[in-house]
Amino acid sequence: MKFSCEKSAFLDAISIASRAVSTKSTIAILEGLRLTATDTLTLSGYDLSMGIRTQVDADVLEPGEIVLSAKLLGDIVRKLPNDVVYVETDDKLLTTIKCGRSVFNLVASASDDFPAMPEVDAACEIPMHEKVLKSMINQTVFAVSDNQAKPIHTGCLFELTDGKLTVVAVDGFRLSIRREMLENAPAEDMKFVVPGTALREIERILHEDGDSVATVCPGEKHILFALGKTTLVCRLIDGEFLNYNAAIPASFEYTVTADTRELITCLERVSLLVSEKLKNPVRITFDGSVMKMTCITAVGKSYDECAINGSVDPLEIGFNSRYLLDALRACSDDTIQLSIKGALNPIVITPTEGEKYTYLVLPVRLKADA
Amino acid sequence: MKFSCEKSAFLDAISIASRAVSTKSTIAILEGLRLTATDTLTLSGYDLSMGIRTQVDADVLEPGEIVLSAKLLGDIVRKLPNDVVYVETDDKLLTTIKCGRSVFNLVASASDDFPAMPEVDAACEIPMHEKVLKSMINQTVFAVSDNQAKPIHTGCLFELTDGKLTVVAVDGFRLSIRREMLENAPAEDMKFVVPGTALREIERILHEDGDSVATVCPGEKHILFALGKTTLVCRLIDGEFLNYNAAIPASFEYTVTADTRELITCLERVSLLVSEKLKNPVRITFDGSVMKMTCITAVGKSYDECAINGSVDPLEIGFNSRYLLDALRACSDDTIQLSIKGALNPIVITPTEGEKYTYLVLPVRLKADA
Repeated sequence: MKFSCEKSAFLDAISIASRAVSTKSTIAILEGLRLTATDTLTLSGYDLSMGIRTQVDADVLEPGEIVLSAKLLGDIVRKLPNDVVYVETDDKLLTTIKCGRSVFNLVASASDDFPAMPEVDAACEIPMHEKVLKSMINQTVFAVSDNQAKPIHTGCLFELTDGKLTVVAVDGFRLSIRREMLENAPAEDMKFVVPGTALREIERILHEDGDSVATVCPGEKHILFALGKTTLVCRLIDGEFLNYNAAIPASFEYTVTADTRELITCLERVSLLVSEKLKNPVRITFDGSVMKMTCITAVGKSYDECAINGSVDPLEIGFNSRYLLDALRACSDDTIQLSIKGALNPIVITPTEGEKYTYLVLPVRLKADA
Repeated sequence: MKFSCEKSAFLDAISIASRAVSTKSTIAILEGLRLTATDTLTLSGYDLSMGIRTQVDADVLEPGEIVLSAKLLGDIVRKLPNDVVYVETDDKLLTTIKCGRSVFNLVASASDDFPAMPEVDAACEIPMHEKVLKSMINQTVFAVSDNQAKPIHTGCLFELTDGKLTVVAVDGFRLSIRREMLENAPAEDMKFVVPGTALREIERILHEDGDSVATVCPGEKHILFALGKTTLVCRLIDGEFLNYNAAIPASFEYTVTADTRELITCLERVSLLVSEKLKNPVRITFDGSVMKMTCITAVGKSYDECAINGSVDPLEIGFNSRYLLDALRACSDDTIQLSIKGALNPIVITPTEGEKYTYLVLPVRLKADA
């Protein structure tokens, strides 16, 4: 194998493919990146649950395939000067990396032992802007469950109905929903659940700006995300996802709006007394046009208040502040709407207009005496 | 106790005094900051080896003294709005912190149990610019030994001779020396050894810019650093410091100069194959006007080269690259001078002019066969 390519392009590709490389595996080859030189250069990482393939513009003089330690290759290329990198492997797999006056000699592994990534039998393709997919993942994935006892909720539900894509995550304490009308969506309706771990990596690879398009290709057991020069493959999760529509109260007693930033700041402050050891709820008292928040732990007591637009009859609800904060931080608007039913009903956070996102947080039962 | 002060000034003082607070102590009060309100407000942290006192401009309405958890107080004040903070403690030590609409109630500890900081019987005062003291610490302290078996070398030697201050650190593998002529230095000569841990904190507190002056006040057993509104006290280390002048070769075979940045980059690259597990030396071959560097570990082989001004007959020296890199990174000049005697003698790094700093790194014996 023999090729040359620009250092920066090589490094970018190494960084992307390394996201699917095991960092601590008992199988040494899974800590490696596969370099495949044909007419172009492809880097692959695969930790047996998620695989990433990415292409690099390279000048291939001799095709071939080897596996090199992802960490070592990344460390080396990162430190090379900004110049053309020459890589050459002899028939004993002794690999030479040259750039400027720097020379590295490493022993590569044979690619025979590198596990094959699953082929995806994609029945259809869902094209969408990268930035839209990125925000849909970012605004839901935080609510994915980490409870492996119920695997179906360790992923996000993707539901396509009449050209509208809905992404949903739920963990038993809160629910996050993100909706978007897609252009050029396939005609048939469908739904599938993608592991949260893979979605977090996809979110990192996706571009925030520009008009580049990603294609989501769900198969029967696996799914493929085509993100420009990069392809990510992972399994789908089998099972019955929560009937999330039934979880949202049909009607509310009060609907008010609040400044997102101010609400976050106040909640962060009163939550300062909450820690891993002292997980007391934050007590929110709606009183007219003010939201009063208190938290009492063994350390002391905190109090803050936030103005709301609208009025609520005195009503006290307890919350795990982390869940409320996660939802509020995911809101992309300066002002949000809070829909409240009662002290034992979930609170629902939505934009003041439209239905781009819906966050639902379950209340915590408060002790009467506090 | 009752006082008010600006949030930002309060937070700065908390951050500074917290540097001397134990983060993990079995004695709870050592994790606290002492707040002393007299006509002014003083915050103190003391972990029994180092103490920091710092003053805050405050409006004291009622004098008093309490101890509050440093971490909690810092977390709270950091999150408060940029406004005046009101602190009030009742006779049961229930402390109220108010700012804007935020209120925190905490139970403070009595200050009686807070350990008293040692009084320093300073015989003299050494005034110097903060930025000079900062650079003198920064350019030597990295070579301080972490071997507690020889306590004297876990500190930096401060040696004042004829108005010239020399700061020295040594750990058995390398030696760092930094010299500076002081204005207004006391007439008498003196020397003392300050713990490296305290110096690292002092370095962080010292300002890099401006003309503010720090005063170093060595006593018999303790030393006091007066840094503007902040005072740091720590013990001095007793013992016989290395006769460092005798460690520097009196003459050299070769004296060459090199570009500091390029030398660092080359060394960093060849050292990429060195890890915690594979601590092989870097082999440096001086050959005419080129410094060739190689490193061979179980992972592979690396090679790089760096141009030097001057010429050296072929000579091979082995080094622990970390020690060389630490010294080179501490050099404040674009070009440095390397003085070489032989394969078994230390290499000496100095500025091309003057004697502001001297770094000495011992060689590592190389296996003949490699």
